[in-house]
Amino acid sequence: MPVYSAPTKDTQFVLHDVLNVSTSEIPGYSELDRDFTAAVLEEAGKLAANVLHPLNVVGDTEGCVLENGVVRTPKGFREAFEQVKEGGWPGLDMPEEYGGQNMPHVIGTAVGEMFSAANQAFTMYQGLTHGAASAILAHGTDAQKDTYLPKMVSCEWTGTMNLTEPHCGTDLGLMRSKAEPQDDGSYRITGQKIFISSGEHDMADNIIHLVLAKIPGGPEGIKGVSLFIVPKFLVNEDGSLGARNGVSCGKIEEKMGIHGNSTCVMNYDGATGWLLGQEHKGMRAMFTMMNEARLGVGMQGLAQAEAAYQNALDYAKDRLQGRDVTGAKNPDGPADPLIVHPDIRRSLMDQKSFAEGARAFLLWGATLIDQAHRADDADADGLISLMTPVIKGFLTDEGYDMTVLAQQVYGGHGYIEEWGMSQYTRDARIAMIYEGANGVQALDLVGRKLAQDGGKHVMAFFEMVKAFCKDNAGQDESFDKTFIEPLKTASKDLQAAGMFFMQEGIKNPNAALSGSYDFMHMFGHVCLGLMWARMAQAAQAALDAGASDRDFYEAKIATGRYYMARRLPATALHLARIRSGADPVMALDAESF
Amino acid sequence: MPVYSAPTKDTQFVLHDVLNVSTSEIPGYSELDRDFTAAVLEEAGKLAANVLHPLNVVGDTEGCVLENGVVRTPKGFREAFEQVKEGGWPGLDMPEEYGGQNMPHVIGTAVGEMFSAANQAFTMYQGLTHGAASAILAHGTDAQKDTYLPKMVSCEWTGTMNLTEPHCGTDLGLMRSKAEPQDDGSYRITGQKIFISSGEHDMADNIIHLVLAKIPGGPEGIKGVSLFIVPKFLVNEDGSLGARNGVSCGKIEEKMGIHGNSTCVMNYDGATGWLLGQEHKGMRAMFTMMNEARLGVGMQGLAQAEAAYQNALDYAKDRLQGRDVTGAKNPDGPADPLIVHPDIRRSLMDQKSFAEGARAFLLWGATLIDQAHRADDADADGLISLMTPVIKGFLTDEGYDMTVLAQQVYGGHGYIEEWGMSQYTRDARIAMIYEGANGVQALDLVGRKLAQDGGKHVMAFFEMVKAFCKDNAGQDESFDKTFIEPLKTASKDLQAAGMFFMQEGIKNPNAALSGSYDFMHMFGHVCLGLMWARMAQAAQAALDAGASDRDFYEAKIATGRYYMARRLPATALHLARIRSGADPVMALDAESF
Repeated sequence: MPVYSAPTKDTQFVLHDVLNVSTSEIPGYSELDRDFTAAVLEEAGKLAANVLHPLNVVGDTEGCVLENGVVRTPKGFREAFEQVKEGGWPGLDMPEEYGGQNMPHVIGTAVGEMFSAANQAFTMYQGLTHGAASAILAHGTDAQKDTYLPKMVSCEWTGTMNLTEPHCGTDLGLMRSKAEPQDDGSYRITGQKIFISSGEHDMADNIIHLVLAKIPGGPEGIKGVSLFIVPKFLVNEDGSLGARNGVSCGKIEEKMGIHGNSTCVMNYDGATGWLLGQEHKGMRAMFTMMNEARLGVGMQGLAQAEAAYQNALDYAKDRLQGRDVTGAKNPDGPADPLIVHPDIRRSLMDQKSFAEGARAFLLWGATLIDQAHRADDADADGLISLMTPVIKGFLTDEGYDMTVLAQQVYGGHGYIEEWGMSQYTRDARIAMIYEGANGVQALDLVGRKLAQDGGKHVMAFFEMVKAFCKDNAGQDESFDKTFIEPLKTASKDLQAAGMFFMQEGIKNPNAALSGSYDFMHMFGHVCLGLMWARMAQAAQAALDAGASDRDFYEAKIATGRYYMARRLPATALHLARIRSGADPVMALDAESF
Repeated sequence: MPVYSAPTKDTQFVLHDVLNVSTSEIPGYSELDRDFTAAVLEEAGKLAANVLHPLNVVGDTEGCVLENGVVRTPKGFREAFEQVKEGGWPGLDMPEEYGGQNMPHVIGTAVGEMFSAANQAFTMYQGLTHGAASAILAHGTDAQKDTYLPKMVSCEWTGTMNLTEPHCGTDLGLMRSKAEPQDDGSYRITGQKIFISSGEHDMADNIIHLVLAKIPGGPEGIKGVSLFIVPKFLVNEDGSLGARNGVSCGKIEEKMGIHGNSTCVMNYDGATGWLLGQEHKGMRAMFTMMNEARLGVGMQGLAQAEAAYQNALDYAKDRLQGRDVTGAKNPDGPADPLIVHPDIRRSLMDQKSFAEGARAFLLWGATLIDQAHRADDADADGLISLMTPVIKGFLTDEGYDMTVLAQQVYGGHGYIEEWGMSQYTRDARIAMIYEGANGVQALDLVGRKLAQDGGKHVMAFFEMVKAFCKDNAGQDESFDKTFIEPLKTASKDLQAAGMFFMQEGIKNPNAALSGSYDFMHMFGHVCLGLMWARMAQAAQAALDAGASDRDFYEAKIATGRYYMARRLPATALHLARIRSGADPVMALDAESF
């Protein structure tokens, strides 16, 4: 049986020692003192560890079952969902007027990591509801907000997003679902959507589907797509539930993982829907949900890596196998624990340095969202827009790789389902795919985000790295050598790649696009390098100030040194690949493969 | 439903254009002319594609079932196994005196790839039998050979290897299974073995278990381990089957993949066994089987990558999504096929360049085995001994990564079981673990094989690369720049890493062991770089000679250029990691994790 405990101490370190949230000027942050966030995180951590985590294996083993149009979730899910609702967790960072607690997004992110790590499939029911509610909040009429948000903020009703159809995923311009205007202002929605997470289940009184469809006669392709609110049960004027709408679950998919979440084929047979936002501007409204979802998926990459790592670490300390080549560490036992072996260390340090770096990256990203939303800061909005594909793509690719490393620590025991390590890799695998496959994230980054607002945001990122290096160099030779210099080198690699794209991409867009995946990864490494430099500096400051928990802060610095020495140099390889240009990638005719 | 077709043309290219098998001086190779190998490969390919491949999904879906001590294999497996036996495939490279066909190992490898790619779980029944038969052939008495080999060569009886116990996998010195000598020269075997592939099933009349156990009173640890033949049914003097032996399957494991193969807990309750080889020299005898198995597992890495790639390629040509940024390629259709997109190309080229490079590497390795066995060449034996952990570790890690890339091409359709892409990754995952987890391969390479015979074999490898570069440089500027120079650079990186190990490892063994995994991967890249340089040279020679199939040879050169430009530079990153030494890896106390 796998273990999980919430990484509260690490999260507190990032919030307070690194990001200094309580002294930030972002509206609402002044309340986030150490005691307050500790109280929130401890409560969330208990729920995650004691309620959600034990259901993780149950969800994987039982899966969801469709019978007579009704989806039965795994045993215990309903009761756990009640506990999540009672704690008010779904509305943590939602507006008070709709029943939320109005906390900053950074707190929602810290809590979200714990819930996802404990049970990704379960937490998706709540996560997609949050996203759908955000879309209604941003684009709905007052009447729509009043009708749906109070119930969605509390998760009495859950939400979904409906984009994909059998013949189109990324290329939504090919969409066939139709929305025919009716005399009463509603629309008749007809079509089939696939891969709809939480599309049908037994944990909520109503399910609010946000559905992309085309209004006949509108513009061709993606410019003719609109977004609709399609509730499972129509809602009466008094808020009570009315007739069942013409939407049903036709099938649930057999998947590699996240068995506890129902992935549905949804059939819309003349269902009644209402326009959300403007006609033909459906993608804009959907992107409110999508961007939030992408950051949430990036968080899943971290979450699964963290959960898998905790288990790998336990096993490495517990399993006795072989002897330390430099001398027995457990001379009275039959063998030494796995953790004495350098190659096991390599694996554990890869995992540890990723998880802690990714957590800092995500929480920093969440502060940018708060800065953008709460302080109307367009620069912060631009920066997080740039970072979104990096967070989604890099953290899910790396997060997956870390679950594979964690599984490997178990040897043969990692491959049998009994130990639970296979589930971490199978669950983590989806995060590289949904909400835009990672290749599409790379395309978004290089093809769109880099040049956004005249390249202003990527320049601001480089300036930020430069400023950090300038402000923190020259005080400690060891810090300069171990953290500042590698960060400078990696950042220069990234700039050189951007320069290559500018120069070559003008002549041939494929020269840039052939390197887009490498660019996304090198960008991720530079971000984690920056985070580790900031964390090491914060840890050193705490040590210098005489912090009592010296082991904790020294371990932070040692883990950061590992990342800088062994992971960050990957930027040079990515740059070499990028500079090889389009020719090696595009040389073959399709027929010559 | 996934597709598979045997890569006969590519295999023929490696055998004849690159390795020139029929003009080699290895005994038995002169028979291997193009027509002969084509006939063998085509027959094997038909069986793989038409009989084994359709059962791959069946095996995954049905799995094996244990009822009343009997394991039922998936529907169709028995009949397919009969066809494999009737074709004489199990004894392809076994001695004629035991019913084999005495063909070189290189042919067995080429056929083995096809069978494994079509159905890994199924092919393991045959593969482990081959390994067990090889161990009996090498270490058995004449009576043992006469009793077991004819039936095992034909696969009337199958074989297993029994090493792992619940508390020990890699560290077999901890073994508890006992073998008590009996008056009649036999031994009473008692103990529990786990993870026994093909341990019990319904496809053979008898199962011959090779079991490691300790004879009481022998040396401590690994030096007191002996190997025993323990048949499921005792064999009478006349060769007929006698009483059921005291060995039974207690459980079959629920696994992440290879569901079609029964992974058994085997209980030995005073079972009758016979010593194979010498007392207390069990590991030596087992390593005959183990080394063969490791090469076979490396082959599985290639095989799953090839099978997954074929499907990804089909899907990329078929699925219409988005438009080529440089102009529509399918203007009359609703969208262009996925294969127009540079990032999809990157993924396909990674897969293609790996699979073709790995095939050449494996077949070359097989010629070394033939050279060692058929021509008693100790240098070839040393070289393949050095290469064995590289083939096992690098090809299974990379092979797995390629199945993940192939799955990714499908987007959401890759995650649902319906399309079969999940199975490739789930099946491929085990290859990184069994027959010695890949971290153990890296340890074997750096801790043992590098220094074997005074480092003679690794020096011979470097000399071989150098000689190739010297012999082939200066004739074609483009070839020099694209193939020779990158190969030289990568080979120098590898040598520099070896030098670092020599210098630092003397002071601190952890300095070498911390870089062992990186070393294994950089060694693999140099091997594939060498293979691609040889393939490109062979393809150019064929073009210069006026070969009619110009597209095929030109595609080979283009694919090689991709590998050299985009994959091989990874050696620099591995070297940088290695040079960071033990400190970043070992800095933390176990308690500080």
